[in-house]
Amino acid sequence: MRIKINNNFDRINQTYLFSNIAARVRDYSKGHPDADIIRLGIGDVTLPLPSVITEAMQQAVLEMGSAETFRGYPPEYGYDFLKDAIVSHYKDLGVNISSSSVFVSDGAKSDLGNIVDILGNNEIIIPDPVYPVYVDSNLMNGNHINLLPGNMDNGFLPMPDELPSGIEAAVIYLCSPNNPTGAAYDQEQLETWVSYAIDTGSLIIYDNAYEAFISEDLSHSIYSVPGAEECAIEICSFSKFAGFTGVRCGWTIIPDTLISEDGHQLSALWSRRQATKFNGVSYPVQRAAEAALSDKGIIELQKNIDYYRRNASTIASALDDLAIRYTGGINSPYIWLECPDGLGSWDFFDKLLHKAQIVGTPGEGFGQAGEGFFRLTAFGTYENTCKAVQRLRKLL
Amino acid sequence: MRIKINNNFDRINQTYLFSNIAARVRDYSKGHPDADIIRLGIGDVTLPLPSVITEAMQQAVLEMGSAETFRGYPPEYGYDFLKDAIVSHYKDLGVNISSSSVFVSDGAKSDLGNIVDILGNNEIIIPDPVYPVYVDSNLMNGNHINLLPGNMDNGFLPMPDELPSGIEAAVIYLCSPNNPTGAAYDQEQLETWVSYAIDTGSLIIYDNAYEAFISEDLSHSIYSVPGAEECAIEICSFSKFAGFTGVRCGWTIIPDTLISEDGHQLSALWSRRQATKFNGVSYPVQRAAEAALSDKGIIELQKNIDYYRRNASTIASALDDLAIRYTGGINSPYIWLECPDGLGSWDFFDKLLHKAQIVGTPGEGFGQAGEGFFRLTAFGTYENTCKAVQRLRKLL
Repeated sequence: MRIKINNNFDRINQTYLFSNIAARVRDYSKGHPDADIIRLGIGDVTLPLPSVITEAMQQAVLEMGSAETFRGYPPEYGYDFLKDAIVSHYKDLGVNISSSSVFVSDGAKSDLGNIVDILGNNEIIIPDPVYPVYVDSNLMNGNHINLLPGNMDNGFLPMPDELPSGIEAAVIYLCSPNNPTGAAYDQEQLETWVSYAIDTGSLIIYDNAYEAFISEDLSHSIYSVPGAEECAIEICSFSKFAGFTGVRCGWTIIPDTLISEDGHQLSALWSRRQATKFNGVSYPVQRAAEAALSDKGIIELQKNIDYYRRNASTIASALDDLAIRYTGGINSPYIWLECPDGLGSWDFFDKLLHKAQIVGTPGEGFGQAGEGFFRLTAFGTYENTCKAVQRLRKLL
Repeated sequence: MRIKINNNFDRINQTYLFSNIAARVRDYSKGHPDADIIRLGIGDVTLPLPSVITEAMQQAVLEMGSAETFRGYPPEYGYDFLKDAIVSHYKDLGVNISSSSVFVSDGAKSDLGNIVDILGNNEIIIPDPVYPVYVDSNLMNGNHINLLPGNMDNGFLPMPDELPSGIEAAVIYLCSPNNPTGAAYDQEQLETWVSYAIDTGSLIIYDNAYEAFISEDLSHSIYSVPGAEECAIEICSFSKFAGFTGVRCGWTIIPDTLISEDGHQLSALWSRRQATKFNGVSYPVQRAAEAALSDKGIIELQKNIDYYRRNASTIASALDDLAIRYTGGINSPYIWLECPDGLGSWDFFDKLLHKAQIVGTPGEGFGQAGEGFFRLTAFGTYENTCKAVQRLRKLL
């Protein structure tokens, strides 16, 4: 077969970070079948869906079983009932967005991965360490990436003044509260980023997947910053906020006002891309999502978020006691800790797995600036989190 | 905002064909609110899901509501229970495929649209008329497309000998039974295509979405042709076979043996692409898909398929009586008719909409070779189909 494949795939790691980790854990498991492994690695939720959500889904499935209420292809960008719920959700956050700027999808990962389809070859600015999708999707597209390092000094909140000068018209990925560091920009910092984007003619792709975990007085949307509607796309997810990692739903906001210098409207491009390569989200899933955003849904989900928050502070306290430096845990389900004794992050991964049967994520998997750091998640059970913390106290 | 967008979007029509049609129908509706519009345009199913499927989905939703049975992120390429069901399904069709070659997705449209991500810039061969996704996704990627015209003479089953000579190492899209023409290649024709692909070092992307409608003695998979595992990807869907247009599930087969001349294994590339840009299919949806492939599911769905088949033959009979030439209707839910009186396809669309309140799809929407042709679908209710046929008999 002599067809050309996309050679850019040679630029990326053979396997995705989490596939890599899963393989190591599987191997350890096979060698130690009785090991009580506590998984604080993958950012996967563990609490079940509240009944208001499962009931909505059940109802929708029932409807699919009856001719009068059966639904076929969903509207391209989401059912109005869900788009309206999303617009309403933003209103509660103090932000006005139009329904036409809402694009429902099967999750933030898909949108973050696919958004490159509508963009040309641009300079890319990505903070380091970071969720691997931003880097990999741009490498696949042959783009040049400028990494902007986070570190303990800037609290893993790198700012534009740390960028090389002269970068113009870039695509900037920001994730706040951050995966993996849990660090969150404050309003002033977001305003600085928006100013920078406007000044340099850049586009911000704002990953807002962890917004629900904010507990300090921080912004819940990039659109809380005036001017963001001229330079920012916001990508959101039901995964962490509603426990939908196994349900699959998210949304992207592309304001009508996002127009490139040569007159292309980004929302029109995305509409066309989605109409061509996507067929919408499952009806029962959209009803589940609508229920998640209902008053009752928000209340029920708040309990789940608080449950995870307790895990986060449990881990954070232990690290405080162990005098290990970290970011996150306050506005995020992630704790990003400095590996003790100057250990490399994969060495620390192995140490935790083999000596304490805890799975975390080595910081290096998120980028060079992650070397020497490690991510633990607050998504386990409270019992397992306490158990893990005990093991950490013993080991470190 | 001075970022570069993907200029290839200028190469494609502003709006996707079906969005275009929906807009025209909405306008007509507004002007004629009492019109009894019969929709035989979009290939959307209308029969509800059989209870074996809704029950499986209900059960899965229940599980999501309980901590012990809650499921988070699905395995990247599908749950084993579904991949096994797919492998088993192929076995029933007389084809052996490995579980590792199965990639579960949220539908054929996503896979057909996204497969370009792993391919480089190649010559593309696409029969005309055709499902717009193949053309549009390649235009978005900047590829040069060679259209291979179907017509009444070749029964809308164009063959390689109708291609210009000298094309090497192309990506060839085949859809059989075809959308929009309903024509289906026989075994010998598929063997010829596979030989051509092997001889020219080409890749076949085989859209098998309508396989369940085959009623003649035809192949149900490209892998029934020896050698196809060296040159073909097969993309399948639950949409038409199981009525999942609103549920969203499909799968792609990429044999491990599909290796490019420079040593890239296509399944490894697709694995990497999906691991990066996709987060799997909803758990309840995968259980629904598993149920669709169960013995009971197949039996129940066969009834639905027969119901649509009756619609198809109802339309076909009428066209026979009206001496209107057509393809399809036998192995397909689509009937592809020659517009009477030499009318252009959009003119015929307007005529049917305004004079008979029937919505169909103008052939030109599927490509130049579709001009003067028109697609009707068998997915309506039997009552509406009979009503539509009566109106056609009067009008034509």
